Amino acid sequence: MTVEQSIAGIRRALAESPRPVGFVPTMGALHAGHARLIEVARDQSQTVVVSIFVNPLQFDQAADYEQYQRSLDTDAALAENNGAHLVFAPTAAEIYPGPAKTFVEVPGLTGHFCGASRPGHFRGVATIVAKLFHIVQPDLALFGEKDAQQLAVIHAMVRDLNFPITVVPVPTVREPDGLALSSRNSRLRPAERRIAVRLYQALARAQQLIGAGERDARKIRQEAGALLLQPAIAVDYFDLANPKTMLPASDATPPVLIMGAIRIGQTRLIDNVLCQA
Amino acid sequence: MTVEQSIAGIRRALAESPRPVGFVPTMGALHAGHARLIEVARDQSQTVVVSIFVNPLQFDQAADYEQYQRSLDTDAALAENNGAHLVFAPTAAEIYPGPAKTFVEVPGLTGHFCGASRPGHFRGVATIVAKLFHIVQPDLALFGEKDAQQLAVIHAMVRDLNFPITVVPVPTVREPDGLALSSRNSRLRPAERRIAVRLYQALARAQQLIGAGERDARKIRQEAGALLLQPAIAVDYFDLANPKTMLPASDATPPVLIMGAIRIGQTRLIDNVLCQA
Repeated sequence: MTVEQSIAGIRRALAESPRPVGFVPTMGALHAGHARLIEVARDQSQTVVVSIFVNPLQFDQAADYEQYQRSLDTDAALAENNGAHLVFAPTAAEIYPGPAKTFVEVPGLTGHFCGASRPGHFRGVATIVAKLFHIVQPDLALFGEKDAQQLAVIHAMVRDLNFPITVVPVPTVREPDGLALSSRNSRLRPAERRIAVRLYQALARAQQLIGAGERDARKIRQEAGALLLQPAIAVDYFDLANPKTMLPASDATPPVLIMGAIRIGQTRLIDNVLCQA
Repeated sequence: MTVEQSIAGIRRALAESPRPVGFVPTMGALHAGHARLIEVARDQSQTVVVSIFVNPLQFDQAADYEQYQRSLDTDAALAENNGAHLVFAPTAAEIYPGPAKTFVEVPGLTGHFCGASRPGHFRGVATIVAKLFHIVQPDLALFGEKDAQQLAVIHAMVRDLNFPITVVPVPTVREPDGLALSSRNSRLRPAERRIAVRLYQALARAQQLIGAGERDARKIRQEAGALLLQPAIAVDYFDLANPKTMLPASDATPPVLIMGAIRIGQTRLIDNVLCQA
């Protein structure tokens, strides 16, 4: 496996690599959720590229950007062990040689949920993903379902801008107790980690209520959301959404997405569960 | 030469065409300026693709969109006679099957000049060009220098988003009296046509003043702009600009762009001249 740090280098390496090319864009701090993305990419492509780039443009909080874990050597080892052929790990100066003047925006999908809580976040995500798509020119790109709104944004961007790329969603990988894997979990102290599972429990409770026939989003939010009423938890949002439009849903008729974002101490966690039709 | 109307069709045709691919995006109503773009494309590529699509997203005035000339048969003939191999002429429904959710924006370059006069115009231009780039996947794309701010926007977009495409600017083609060729010239009545050349004359006068050492943009605007003081001409802007930043320049030290936009009756005309360092 090769680690390339320059755009010219990764393009050269890719020119000699067999297609189809599967692409897993990451911000590093790789865990078993990323390993699953790489495995799925390997099953569906001849060449697997993993990018590792902590994108300053998508952080609304400078402190969050600074604190974001950097661990290239262990990340590269995890990528290799799971079947990646190329790692693209550029510096910020390689990706943003000057101030960014051009932005990709999906305003219709980003007015609620994380889009409302994190101004500019999805503009940063869409812009860096468009850049990486043009650098890597993959046939498929894999994204985790944990970031449901991000996935909807990428789907819309690829469809609306006619990127010649297939977006492959990959189910969320969870700890045995249900907590969704996230690079941010490593920041949780033991007591915080114990309480973090409440987010998944609340989503699962909502799913259960919908499965039992409840259709009133307000009631579901209230009953399932009660599991988040903990002094250590600050709820950013806990709501039902139309999975296509990313607008809040008042009627819980499937398909409906249950989405939550909470803060425990300094750590922000998100998760979601889809109730399929 | 083949005319393709579907995205699938043009992609199939391109898969069998030799590279490099040169791409000339147009809104049809082709004239000798477009012919020059196609000629330059033919000199630099093995396959020349001309797209003909009147993009509703870049019109700030519905009437202007409706009135924009459609003439596919004569356009296809002109493209063929000048060496195009493929024409891509999709319907609006093929390009925008649903409401557009995703936009490409270059806000820093579009706050003045046509960007200020035509809200949303350059967002529409950048978005359709990104779409066409993903559909055609050219190696080179050719744009006329007459649309200087558009060219700056496309240059920035390609560089900032890492499109694997070389942008080739092509000098403006002019009538013998200096009027820049434009599809909109055909809307001018004879008396309007006679006066339209004043725009080029004002730009040329400004260029002359700068060549003679004048550096005060205000004086240049005043003296050269006097040529536009005609009852039949409404000046949208007549100004000096930094060709890279597309910000107004108060100091005329080259390189400096002299840009003008006027209305004569219902017809809006733009033109520019670059004073090189």
